[in-house]
Amino acid sequence: MVLTNSTDSQTIPFDLSAYLLERKKQVEAALEQAIAVVYPERIYESMRYSLMAGGKRLRPILCLATAELAGGTAEIAMPTACALEMIHTMSLIHDDLPAMDNDDFRRGQPTNHKVYGEDIAILAGDGLLAYAFEFIAVQTQQVPAERVLRVIAHLGRAAGAAGLVGGQAVDLESEGKSEVGVETLNFIHRHKTAALLEASVVSGAVLAGAEQADIERLSRYAQHIGLAFQIVDDVLDITSTPEALGKSTGKDVQAQKVTYPSIWGIEESKRQAHQLVEAAKQELRSFGDSRRPLAAIADYITARTH
Amino acid sequence: MVLTNSTDSQTIPFDLSAYLLERKKQVEAALEQAIAVVYPERIYESMRYSLMAGGKRLRPILCLATAELAGGTAEIAMPTACALEMIHTMSLIHDDLPAMDNDDFRRGQPTNHKVYGEDIAILAGDGLLAYAFEFIAVQTQQVPAERVLRVIAHLGRAAGAAGLVGGQAVDLESEGKSEVGVETLNFIHRHKTAALLEASVVSGAVLAGAEQADIERLSRYAQHIGLAFQIVDDVLDITSTPEALGKSTGKDVQAQKVTYPSIWGIEESKRQAHQLVEAAKQELRSFGDSRRPLAAIADYITARTH
Repeated sequence: MVLTNSTDSQTIPFDLSAYLLERKKQVEAALEQAIAVVYPERIYESMRYSLMAGGKRLRPILCLATAELAGGTAEIAMPTACALEMIHTMSLIHDDLPAMDNDDFRRGQPTNHKVYGEDIAILAGDGLLAYAFEFIAVQTQQVPAERVLRVIAHLGRAAGAAGLVGGQAVDLESEGKSEVGVETLNFIHRHKTAALLEASVVSGAVLAGAEQADIERLSRYAQHIGLAFQIVDDVLDITSTPEALGKSTGKDVQAQKVTYPSIWGIEESKRQAHQLVEAAKQELRSFGDSRRPLAAIADYITARTH
Repeated sequence: MVLTNSTDSQTIPFDLSAYLLERKKQVEAALEQAIAVVYPERIYESMRYSLMAGGKRLRPILCLATAELAGGTAEIAMPTACALEMIHTMSLIHDDLPAMDNDDFRRGQPTNHKVYGEDIAILAGDGLLAYAFEFIAVQTQQVPAERVLRVIAHLGRAAGAAGLVGGQAVDLESEGKSEVGVETLNFIHRHKTAALLEASVVSGAVLAGAEQADIERLSRYAQHIGLAFQIVDDVLDITSTPEALGKSTGKDVQAQKVTYPSIWGIEESKRQAHQLVEAAKQELRSFGDSRRPLAAIADYITARTH
């Protein structure tokens, strides 16, 4: 896939597929090293089962790309990139539990609690969340400690009640309610999806020592693509197949969930996602050629079919 | 209660009851301020419900006492003290879940999931765990960032698979098994109980800038009292009443759990706990008068009846 940047007259060709593949490999090699299986093996195996179950590794890749954009290296950001994937995986394991969304499959594989039982699945999520912070604190090299603390604070906020947890709480509360409006829906997805994507981008920038104005631009970029990502996800739940998505489809309709397509319709949802992606790319204008990965990732969100 | 220190000829009178009461008030005032209830209220209320449900606040108090012992102030350690209680509370909420120990009461009150439902209880635990790290990173004042990072690393380790999570995993796995030996039992309690007590003590020392040799002494002190604490807990489960303990008793026998009294008998268990407390106090010898709170807390463990 070769995408061109459409926000200005200058065309910047960029091979996103190759970039994502290469970066995914790097991230998975680092994740592979991150958790050793020791006694009691079952809990470490359960943590690894979900952590190594594939996925696009979008959050780590955004973190690495932003660190480079802001003048740092991928190396200084890799521990935080891994921690972001641990936090994301924790939220998937817990959201899939019978007491929550009760999902049996994730990325085409049985969910954690289907393999290890509910008790171990709850503990595996807790273990990944705690380890994420330990991992950043212990593994980050060649970054002033003040910046690392700022990253930990930002990720803690994105993972907790002001982020993932708060979004999931409102999502659960809204299920089966037909009067859910677009503001509630935005709240859910700003917290369930956008908050951790935003933390991925901002943490890369903070580690690299970006200036506050640039951090704010990158934060807005990430919030826009986060919401666009969720709108496209809602659309794909209707228009795609389980085979293409690697997870069950039509779930939202079945659960009587209010979604962007259920409020706006499919075409308007796509238009809104496209607009958000354009706004996201506008925020990148001042960064020159080094913005290419982030710009291409924004385009990829509306282009993706699974 | 006025306890005297029995490890050396010099008698150090110390009013532990007054000390614990005063410190508990300080900690609860700080915890009260730590979490504001905002939208979505239910998740914050659930987090506060368990966080403010009482308890001895032993972990925060150990952290504050050790910070002072090591030449620091209670102020520099208060955010970490609060975070320790958040992590402890998270582990109680999740351990009480139906998929784990399935407890309906805790400290005489209905457990979190009985009040808020399983879904919110899981999320409240996640929220407290994530917030603990954010809270330390954002709130700690007048401590070099390197020390704060070291504290975060230590607490992450104590909360995760190398600590609480690993201990609970082995505990669940051992339930109903009659062949559990004292080594497995030690593993469970070194991880479920002692690890976070140890982190409480070590984090106070690290924040205050203690030397490595002193940190190691204090670490051993905490590991000894952690194990002693659990032995006494096992004994009290047999010898105390639900009214005195504020939680159900006889649970271990009912669940066919192997405990220290079931291996050693009640008298030998008490003797072992006493020996551990003496060993703990030995580690404090070099600290002079400032060791009094920690020494008295060690004595209190074997003296307590609930």
